Amino acid sequence: MASPHRVLCLETLSTSITNINVPILGSVTQRAMDIKREIEEGKQKPFKEIIFCHFGDLHAMGQKPCTFLRQVMALCMYPALLDNSEFPEDTKRKARSILQTLENGSVGSYNEFYSWETLPQRIAHFIQRRDGGIPCDPKNVVVSSGATAAIVSVLTMVVNEDEPLRTGIMLSVPQYPVYVDTIMLSAAVKVEYNLDEENGWSLNVDNIRQSLYKARTHCNPKVLCVMNPGNPTGRVESRECIEDVIRLAAEENLLLFVDEVCQENIFGLGATFHSFKKVLFEIGPRYSQQIQLVSVNSVSKGVSGECGLRCGYIEFVNIDPAVFQKLFTLKSFAVPNVIGMLAMDIMMDPPQPADPSYKTFMEEKKAVLSALAENAKLTEEILNQAPGIHCNPIQGAMYAFPRIHIPERAVKLAQTQGLEPDNMFCHHLLEETGIALAPGSCFGQVKDTYHIRRHV
Amino acid sequence: MASPHRVLCLETLSTSITNINVPILGSVTQRAMDIKREIEEGKQKPFKEIIFCHFGDLHAMGQKPCTFLRQVMALCMYPALLDNSEFPEDTKRKARSILQTLENGSVGSYNEFYSWETLPQRIAHFIQRRDGGIPCDPKNVVVSSGATAAIVSVLTMVVNEDEPLRTGIMLSVPQYPVYVDTIMLSAAVKVEYNLDEENGWSLNVDNIRQSLYKARTHCNPKVLCVMNPGNPTGRVESRECIEDVIRLAAEENLLLFVDEVCQENIFGLGATFHSFKKVLFEIGPRYSQQIQLVSVNSVSKGVSGECGLRCGYIEFVNIDPAVFQKLFTLKSFAVPNVIGMLAMDIMMDPPQPADPSYKTFMEEKKAVLSALAENAKLTEEILNQAPGIHCNPIQGAMYAFPRIHIPERAVKLAQTQGLEPDNMFCHHLLEETGIALAPGSCFGQVKDTYHIRRHV
Repeated sequence: MASPHRVLCLETLSTSITNINVPILGSVTQRAMDIKREIEEGKQKPFKEIIFCHFGDLHAMGQKPCTFLRQVMALCMYPALLDNSEFPEDTKRKARSILQTLENGSVGSYNEFYSWETLPQRIAHFIQRRDGGIPCDPKNVVVSSGATAAIVSVLTMVVNEDEPLRTGIMLSVPQYPVYVDTIMLSAAVKVEYNLDEENGWSLNVDNIRQSLYKARTHCNPKVLCVMNPGNPTGRVESRECIEDVIRLAAEENLLLFVDEVCQENIFGLGATFHSFKKVLFEIGPRYSQQIQLVSVNSVSKGVSGECGLRCGYIEFVNIDPAVFQKLFTLKSFAVPNVIGMLAMDIMMDPPQPADPSYKTFMEEKKAVLSALAENAKLTEEILNQAPGIHCNPIQGAMYAFPRIHIPERAVKLAQTQGLEPDNMFCHHLLEETGIALAPGSCFGQVKDTYHIRRHV
Repeated sequence: MASPHRVLCLETLSTSITNINVPILGSVTQRAMDIKREIEEGKQKPFKEIIFCHFGDLHAMGQKPCTFLRQVMALCMYPALLDNSEFPEDTKRKARSILQTLENGSVGSYNEFYSWETLPQRIAHFIQRRDGGIPCDPKNVVVSSGATAAIVSVLTMVVNEDEPLRTGIMLSVPQYPVYVDTIMLSAAVKVEYNLDEENGWSLNVDNIRQSLYKARTHCNPKVLCVMNPGNPTGRVESRECIEDVIRLAAEENLLLFVDEVCQENIFGLGATFHSFKKVLFEIGPRYSQQIQLVSVNSVSKGVSGECGLRCGYIEFVNIDPAVFQKLFTLKSFAVPNVIGMLAMDIMMDPPQPADPSYKTFMEEKKAVLSALAENAKLTEEILNQAPGIHCNPIQGAMYAFPRIHIPERAVKLAQTQGLEPDNMFCHHLLEETGIALAPGSCFGQVKDTYHIRRHV
């Protein structure tokens, strides 16, 4: 019998894995789930349930599922319902048109052709309509298993561990943590630039340029990641600012990776969503023929808010389609599930004025956005009334990222416990009230500033 | 304006990515999809449609969805249907019990608690029942986004690029290609051992040991991957053989990674499924307390056959749960979709004799297995009648992997075209008949032997 040492244990994990210390939104998530289990097992707590406010989980936070979407999906799941008279005619029409394009009419087939041909065509139509007719070739659209899988796949392709200088990837501070985790598991270097908190968390090209030049002394920054609307900031970027970022990317030869998953969640007074693709093509061919742009979107946000269904898409601009052939293989590790693809398909082509489902659909859409707008206003007002908390205006997405003042003594206490001060704050809040928030340290923040992220 | 070189193009991809030359089942897949598109665009071909026989895609190959499963899922998708009198009472009961455990009752929430607590409990009950009462702790069960994601996550954890000797992972020849792709994208070394084609594609411990000892001169083999029932071989392993493999793993201190996704697809005369876990515990504590075992299962096979829904699970034996905490993070890259998890939940607890859906469920289950059995028999008979083809008995899973004789002149022709001979064979077959098969070279095969895989 061989020696009793174990093949797979904490000691045998590689440093790239052990360095990832916390789950995606900090140890608060894990602790909140433990408490939830303890409550179910009958343990007494000063509260009755955990209120999860740390995730961008719209349905969990009360958004109602879109009726049209769910009806079409139920029909596709169990086509015998196509005989049911209670489903509106347009839901059946859409379901039939989807079922016709599925292998053997089943959502249970892999449906590779649907994933690589049919759905990209429908997404391309949507993008073209959204951008006022600027062309979108379906060959440049790839369906992914959610935005997260899109981020991981594309960044994996960009990192080249064979080159003498390590690949640099530029991320905002604060940023969505999946980017950092992806970089940590790869051979890339994280190059951070600060968003402008004093200016409502705006992108700031001076900050980006400064970080870029500094990073070039030790790595090769290739990609500039931006997010609009911002997570965790709730910022909706102005057209001028987007132009500035595009010009910078052109001057510095950076690939623009644009996370636009919250493009439908716009509710701030005067805020408008401008897609990077549209702005790129409007400022002229000198830019639109040169810049490599990657944009991602998802069914997890917007009117659908279907986080649980895991589907997104990637649009590539000025990137050789032969590169996507490689994604075909990488993607085999995360084949999108068919139900998620159906949700994407349905949201790309919502009910039109003459359709029986139109009225309900529009009412639900309005309700989603006005609830977010009201909650955002309330959140902002209440937080700004609290001493030691300052919250920037929330214009889009679904998050508030207020700055919290943590007294020096508390900061020292946290340090003695080996915790980030805002993480300690969130843990205390969780244990005392059952409210789960995400600490700012999970998203990155300027040194000696502390924040929390909450779903509005 | 910077130089016009592009950040992301074929030339800038790292070798670990460019080395992956083909999509998962060879260039035949891609060509078949191109032809399908050409037919849709009106191009004339010597056939009317592509017949996809290369995938393990049960619904695409004609298996009917399980009614109970689809009814419960439609109810969860659109809960207004709970008032519909046409759904059997037990489908509603199951749907209500699932909806109660979902965040805000929605399949559209992330449902982390369901994924990490509720569903693993139900899976553990199933495993315990399956293995005649041998305990299964839900803490050792992790839900994954399909078996593929499970394979990738676990093998990623095992590979340690910090160690002086590279991590070796032992794979059978032939094997399921995802393993090879995973290893190619990691820092691991592939260590191949031959299955015994003369003996119905059985595992052969002498072959394994021989490869192991040879590999130890240049790497550190840590994991022995086996698949039962076999893909692409259709082999169902005997209890004795499983015992031998377990003893070998114990003697050589190998982690056993067991792919048991086809455990329900058993139809060969006298063939029985023995889970590695059960055999491990039956041969005694000396083994069951030592061996590290990882077993994966999926909803893509069996009675459900729901490949499109992407859900699987992993059971860990004798592995520190703290290691799974790391999976929590790695897994954030492939959060399982909720609909897939529902399918898993439903299949873990199928209708019982007193339930209204029982009769239909059992009829459908029987139909699935007898269709596979009949097709397997027919496939075997017809192939063995053809000159130059030999097919081993097909006992389980859903594949035939016959050996085909390719004449020397054809082999030479293929070589001048830079193609594997069996890949050329499959391409000719596709262009002339519209039938898509997977070439044996995608799965690995002994030098100068050629095979094809087809779904029975």
